[in-house]
Amino acid sequence: MIGEIIAIGSELTSGRVLNTTSRFAAGLLFGAGHDILSMATIGDTPAEISKTLLRATKRADFIIVTGGLGATSDDLTSEVVGQALGRPAVFHPEIFDKIKARHVKADDGDLKTLKKLAVLPTGAEILNPEGKMAGYLLVHDSKPIFFLPGVPHEMQELLADKVIPRLALWQGGEANLVKQRVYKVFGLGETEINRRVAHLEREEDGRVRIGYYPVFPEVHLSLAVIAGDRANIEKIFQHLEDEVKTALGDALFGTDDDTMESVVGELLLSQKKMLATAESCSGGLIGYKITAVSGSSNYFAGGVIAYSNDLKEKFLGVDSDLLARHGAVSSAVAKAMAAGIRSKTAADIGLAVTGIAGPTGGTLEKPVGTVFIALSTPDETIDIPCRFAGDRWQVQELSAVTSLDLIRRLLLGLKLQIC
Amino acid sequence: MIGEIIAIGSELTSGRVLNTTSRFAAGLLFGAGHDILSMATIGDTPAEISKTLLRATKRADFIIVTGGLGATSDDLTSEVVGQALGRPAVFHPEIFDKIKARHVKADDGDLKTLKKLAVLPTGAEILNPEGKMAGYLLVHDSKPIFFLPGVPHEMQELLADKVIPRLALWQGGEANLVKQRVYKVFGLGETEINRRVAHLEREEDGRVRIGYYPVFPEVHLSLAVIAGDRANIEKIFQHLEDEVKTALGDALFGTDDDTMESVVGELLLSQKKMLATAESCSGGLIGYKITAVSGSSNYFAGGVIAYSNDLKEKFLGVDSDLLARHGAVSSAVAKAMAAGIRSKTAADIGLAVTGIAGPTGGTLEKPVGTVFIALSTPDETIDIPCRFAGDRWQVQELSAVTSLDLIRRLLLGLKLQIC
Repeated sequence: MIGEIIAIGSELTSGRVLNTTSRFAAGLLFGAGHDILSMATIGDTPAEISKTLLRATKRADFIIVTGGLGATSDDLTSEVVGQALGRPAVFHPEIFDKIKARHVKADDGDLKTLKKLAVLPTGAEILNPEGKMAGYLLVHDSKPIFFLPGVPHEMQELLADKVIPRLALWQGGEANLVKQRVYKVFGLGETEINRRVAHLEREEDGRVRIGYYPVFPEVHLSLAVIAGDRANIEKIFQHLEDEVKTALGDALFGTDDDTMESVVGELLLSQKKMLATAESCSGGLIGYKITAVSGSSNYFAGGVIAYSNDLKEKFLGVDSDLLARHGAVSSAVAKAMAAGIRSKTAADIGLAVTGIAGPTGGTLEKPVGTVFIALSTPDETIDIPCRFAGDRWQVQELSAVTSLDLIRRLLLGLKLQIC
Repeated sequence: MIGEIIAIGSELTSGRVLNTTSRFAAGLLFGAGHDILSMATIGDTPAEISKTLLRATKRADFIIVTGGLGATSDDLTSEVVGQALGRPAVFHPEIFDKIKARHVKADDGDLKTLKKLAVLPTGAEILNPEGKMAGYLLVHDSKPIFFLPGVPHEMQELLADKVIPRLALWQGGEANLVKQRVYKVFGLGETEINRRVAHLEREEDGRVRIGYYPVFPEVHLSLAVIAGDRANIEKIFQHLEDEVKTALGDALFGTDDDTMESVVGELLLSQKKMLATAESCSGGLIGYKITAVSGSSNYFAGGVIAYSNDLKEKFLGVDSDLLARHGAVSSAVAKAMAAGIRSKTAADIGLAVTGIAGPTGGTLEKPVGTVFIALSTPDETIDIPCRFAGDRWQVQELSAVTSLDLIRRLLLGLKLQIC
């Protein structure tokens, strides 16, 4: 079914509050096989509420309206809806009794305000008789319109427990099955990924959906299949997933909730390896990413933010001659830093990064974005010279994620010269 | 002026990605004196893009469209807009030249895809000639329509730097003058700030607008005054700014483009002080924040990510007895770490953080969120015990921003016991 979501509240259109409920609803509905045509966010304005709702009834198979159901003066949904759909709002004493029972300490003034919660459009079917604020269903032109409170957790509960099952019944159990997975890629651009997998969308009569979501510096790819029956969907999905995996190769580092740092953490843990870092231009970002994963103390010893040459010498034992001869931003110094942090901490892997994040500090020979990464193991110390494009934030981010990807590649025996 | 915001992207209507850009735009526009009639979020569907845009041109004074400007097959905005508004999309060789210059390694296939970025509706005025993705302005029926990339930081930059000033100029001399400033606060919650400044909105006949934008763990407050003439606006604004500053006290750390780390950096630079850090639970986040500011090598020596006890001993000279007696998460160890990093690096200020970021590792005595911060100077070493609420990410973020705020307070001679 095709749906529209309408969120009502001037706190949303003034930017004061972020609308998270529409996104939650869209995700749940999409996963249940429905398509969302449009998500409208509008203020507490009668004319706009009325217009948006009437327009939606002409286009969508179902409508979700959130917000504006409270007791304060700017909550107008029930009143406006009653007028717009020709269903005058009526007082429900049985609802008001329940409200009174929950507000035993309320004085007459409070009760007068709360009375509004029991005034609903004619024909409203209450979805949550025990709720603080009524959520209800109106059927208009044979289409279901669900009115839900804007409070995120009340709305989410009603949506999952009442709305999704009602929609499934609406179609007589014919709802489509959807299977979706997200693939996370580092080292391939959106356009290159698009080129490699776009043909899959033409398979299976338009029942395959591929989305590209760049989350700098990664690209996330969403694969969804819509099918009629469970056996069929699993078979189709497996085939498409195999194709996606082949197309992405070793640039695919994880799926769904994986992050680069969680993937690296799991590899270090399963291979019982300790990591230590020596960061210059990334300034601590690699350490921060690694320690953002709970339990990282099991595989991360720590490291040095060797921002000055002095600290490179003192903490990492980098030779002052070497610094003078090659400069702090060089393969030689990166290797000395990686070997240094490994030997000082007795870690299994030493990782080092030194570079020019910009916007100043670049030279003709070593422009902004020049970054040297090195990995040191008991067997060898390898340098990976990189040149990244972007502003300071991007160069730091690329330095950190490339470094983590290199540890992943080292532990999986993949190609290391990726820059 | 009354505006509409249209966000395009099937990743939004499928609920996979939360639309934060529309809210950001709404907040900034509201702060600049505009009202948002509706925020529409729609998929990459030509008919829906076209319909939504045409409808908006009939209702709003200006329109902001975000997303769908990329190079992949699902990016349709420019093409559809060209058709809907009768402005066929044309190829701009000068834009393509710039794209090619940024993609020296691109092969013919890549370039064929990238060419799309240079195809814009007839009459488009490019807002960011140097950007990765063109943002542009189309004037239709004498109304400005701004097309901005969906990538949040690119969109936000264009909106603040180009769109808001253009809108201010739009009606020539007839437009109301708006003066706006953002005040950045750390250590006071949104409701407390609201309590202190809300009365200002009742001054000046509704010409004062105050917006609250929590940017965890800070709260940003936007003050805008709308007035008819420049002399008047400056006077009113100055009076209100004085009131805001008094109300916020020393929790106000900066305005507009300031960040906590840029403010701290400027103070260190002007007082000619070098800083060094010893981080445990924050894992490198403090170093990363400091080095995100260009030129930070002038006041930041670097530091140690002492995630294990071993590194606390080896690099910072923390006594193993002290660690055994008090535990790694203690005031005594924080002080030893701060004094240690200062003496090892000869910095003027040593900062140390040790704590339990969670979700595991908490005890009855030291629950998750227990964090000890210490500051060491040649005169003294001070400990600041804190207890932060939140998940792992929030505890790390609070640890880092509180640490930076403590350096600010130290350098300004303000109260240090803020936890």
